[in-house]
Amino acid sequence: MRVLDVILKTRNGEELTDDELSRFIDDYSRGQIPDYQVAAWLMAVVFNGLTRRETGVLTRSMIESGDTIDLSSLPGPLVDKHSTGGVGDTVSLILAPLAAACGLQVPMMSGRALGHTGGTLDKLESIPGYRTDLDPERFRSIIAECGFAMTGQSERIVPADRKLYALRDATGTVESVSLITGSILSKKFAEGAEALVFDVKCGSGAFMKNPEKARVLAESLCSAGRELGRTVHALITRMDQPLGWAVGNRLEVEEAVSCLQGDRSMTADGAERSEVPKIGPDSGSRKSRASVTGQATDSERGFGAGSEDLMEVTLRLLGWMLFAGGIVGDISEGMALGRAKLADGSAYRCFLHNVELQGGDVEKLRKLIGKRTAPHARPIRAGRDGVVHAIDSFAVGTGAALLGVGRPVAGAEVLPDVGVVFHCKVGAAVREGDEIAVLYGHEESTLEDAVRRIAPGIEIRSGEDTVADEKAAAGMILEEISAE
Amino acid sequence: MRVLDVILKTRNGEELTDDELSRFIDDYSRGQIPDYQVAAWLMAVVFNGLTRRETGVLTRSMIESGDTIDLSSLPGPLVDKHSTGGVGDTVSLILAPLAAACGLQVPMMSGRALGHTGGTLDKLESIPGYRTDLDPERFRSIIAECGFAMTGQSERIVPADRKLYALRDATGTVESVSLITGSILSKKFAEGAEALVFDVKCGSGAFMKNPEKARVLAESLCSAGRELGRTVHALITRMDQPLGWAVGNRLEVEEAVSCLQGDRSMTADGAERSEVPKIGPDSGSRKSRASVTGQATDSERGFGAGSEDLMEVTLRLLGWMLFAGGIVGDISEGMALGRAKLADGSAYRCFLHNVELQGGDVEKLRKLIGKRTAPHARPIRAGRDGVVHAIDSFAVGTGAALLGVGRPVAGAEVLPDVGVVFHCKVGAAVREGDEIAVLYGHEESTLEDAVRRIAPGIEIRSGEDTVADEKAAAGMILEEISAE
Repeated sequence: MRVLDVILKTRNGEELTDDELSRFIDDYSRGQIPDYQVAAWLMAVVFNGLTRRETGVLTRSMIESGDTIDLSSLPGPLVDKHSTGGVGDTVSLILAPLAAACGLQVPMMSGRALGHTGGTLDKLESIPGYRTDLDPERFRSIIAECGFAMTGQSERIVPADRKLYALRDATGTVESVSLITGSILSKKFAEGAEALVFDVKCGSGAFMKNPEKARVLAESLCSAGRELGRTVHALITRMDQPLGWAVGNRLEVEEAVSCLQGDRSMTADGAERSEVPKIGPDSGSRKSRASVTGQATDSERGFGAGSEDLMEVTLRLLGWMLFAGGIVGDISEGMALGRAKLADGSAYRCFLHNVELQGGDVEKLRKLIGKRTAPHARPIRAGRDGVVHAIDSFAVGTGAALLGVGRPVAGAEVLPDVGVVFHCKVGAAVREGDEIAVLYGHEESTLEDAVRRIAPGIEIRSGEDTVADEKAAAGMILEEISAE
Repeated sequence: MRVLDVILKTRNGEELTDDELSRFIDDYSRGQIPDYQVAAWLMAVVFNGLTRRETGVLTRSMIESGDTIDLSSLPGPLVDKHSTGGVGDTVSLILAPLAAACGLQVPMMSGRALGHTGGTLDKLESIPGYRTDLDPERFRSIIAECGFAMTGQSERIVPADRKLYALRDATGTVESVSLITGSILSKKFAEGAEALVFDVKCGSGAFMKNPEKARVLAESLCSAGRELGRTVHALITRMDQPLGWAVGNRLEVEEAVSCLQGDRSMTADGAERSEVPKIGPDSGSRKSRASVTGQATDSERGFGAGSEDLMEVTLRLLGWMLFAGGIVGDISEGMALGRAKLADGSAYRCFLHNVELQGGDVEKLRKLIGKRTAPHARPIRAGRDGVVHAIDSFAVGTGAALLGVGRPVAGAEVLPDVGVVFHCKVGAAVREGDEIAVLYGHEESTLEDAVRRIAPGIEIRSGEDTVADEKAAAGMILEEISAE
């Protein structure tokens, strides 16, 4: 009777008491409420939402459903970042070591590829030997040693979320801001973070397709964080075209390495210059958007330091993380600190240290950089002269998933070395026949399928059309929402 | 994947194709879709509804989930009535034999007490020996012999509805016009009816509390009937105060007998006058609303012929049933025919014939009439002089359920001889100390609980207040909706 009352109240748009909601979640996670009743409640939440207060209680109840990791004995501020998921979203791989180099401690619990989006765990596991199944003690000690650790969600952390997520996935109730908020926040706070910065992606390759929806989620995350007494900031960032140059697991690791080492080689001390090909445009003839907007081309400034869009998002998130952790007084100061830690090689050293600590083989990784081990490649070429007007990141994400970057169907194998490398971005001037991108795969047939998926999403218009320029000039950060 | 698509389409307000919806229902009734997915879909239906077309497909799919009863070999028009449920709703017990006496064949498949409402099966089973578990062949042959039969829903008729209803009951998804429509229509058409007349109750004792909601349901029933190519009419009738004088199982049978025999006795041939007390006001000093509105008092015209409100609803429904069956050309003609069949005793004979055919003991029933076998009785008296302004039928229904008329909790025992007998209706003038009603029960404690539930719902105002009179004068039929 009590369970039915909970369903009816939510269905009728009435607010549940803290006790009603926390018991409901608690009973469900202990197997005392059947799935069908929770499924009906979840659908009622999709329609009516939860209040700020309810979302806070949901989050707390989910945290309390399992173990939490206590990292309070670590000396530095514990700040993590979470992305709602994008295509070519290499940010975590760069940001975690960079934030650690700046003095934060980053307990990062990540996920796997989901739908058209990639997964940080899948990317890390493309590094030979790298382990993402850390137990809490190892997780803590790696953070203590190198400032950050990357792990998957353990069975014992937030079991209520595992159960609820599986049920939501099967019942069409994934898309609820309140449920998404509870799911994300509970995991992040259970892993030991004290403050959080969110990267709420917005655009064709994001789960939130428009800024209004992204803002609703960003505000929900911040306000639920406030309900829990924690600092939460959220940035809404553009996800119209894939972020950076690479979409793929090891391809993105390689791109992260390029960003972290700047113009330094792939060595532990950052002293030698590597001769291996860098990720990005392979000739000055194919210009990045920088060339169109009158700034230096990627080839002039060396795209090994990272594509502009990827580094813009990464550094801005870093600024907020350092501000949240009390290391800097404002965002620009944090960004400047980050640039310094990239320039002096300490962020890159931090990355390599972590790879070693998590079992990764740095030498093997170095040998793999620039090697395209996937047996087949297929270019997508410009069909006309003009300016790249759009690269549909949803199409790229689903095409890349077909290649093995993600899991187009549940249980499909994720491959380390497949994916897409773009040679230009939106705003770039191209000539007919230029390579826009190259796809790498294990089978000719899936490569063809992926090309058919991705190519129609690449739009080239005549040079006079300035829409793309305006879009590009707007920058990657659409909005910044602070809980304070 | 297909199941999830169905959920998502309904959630997103898109119309399902006939094939999608019929497969969904079919697969569910064959156990191939888990309850939790259907529960989520049901909640999406509660919020977004189904289109007229979808409701028709739902109904047809539910019919096709099990056996149907073929009554087409019977000679007369097959017309049934269905009520959405009320308090003291004795109509079926009077209407079925009356319609049969007028030449219709009535295949009535009824339900049990639910929540605060009574159930026709529970009422019939208060007649010693009466069986409501007829197999299809016996159902058909009883209709052939006496013009109507009363049965419960067999396991093999519309199994999809049994499964769906149980799930809806547990998941807060009962209140959906589309789902209610599918549930009701599928049962009624599977039982062999060709045309249907609905009594959509409206008011405190009904599931639909206001005329707008009742109209939506009435129109949904009519339009889904049209989708199925059947004749469906719907009347919206008042359910503010309990219908008639009695609320209880055998008490309502007794009231039905009084209505059917008019001023005749409880004998098979209708010739002798019975000396047993009739249901209704027991003295001329407590006047019915007729006395206030200047018409004859119940005691003057003999309330054995039925309370005005109960007979108004019954005769109007009869008129529509006879019209739907093509026996009369308009509703008034049908009502006049019904009055004649009451007056000549043929409706009553039809009732007695049915009781015998369904195993009931007419002699035992006759001996029980007027006998209050429940061990305890408790009056509710007027606390002041005035006019009865309201009798809250929801309060009466829940109070009566406590006494054993229905099932306040699942599995509770239903008792034949408990209930409430009213001695006046809304609009009646009363003096302080007059008996408004008498409650009959098996335990003192439940009687007290029931009085506490019912008494506050009886409102007496000073005689100058004319609101009650206006309400009463408006009549019982709020609206009539025809599918044609």
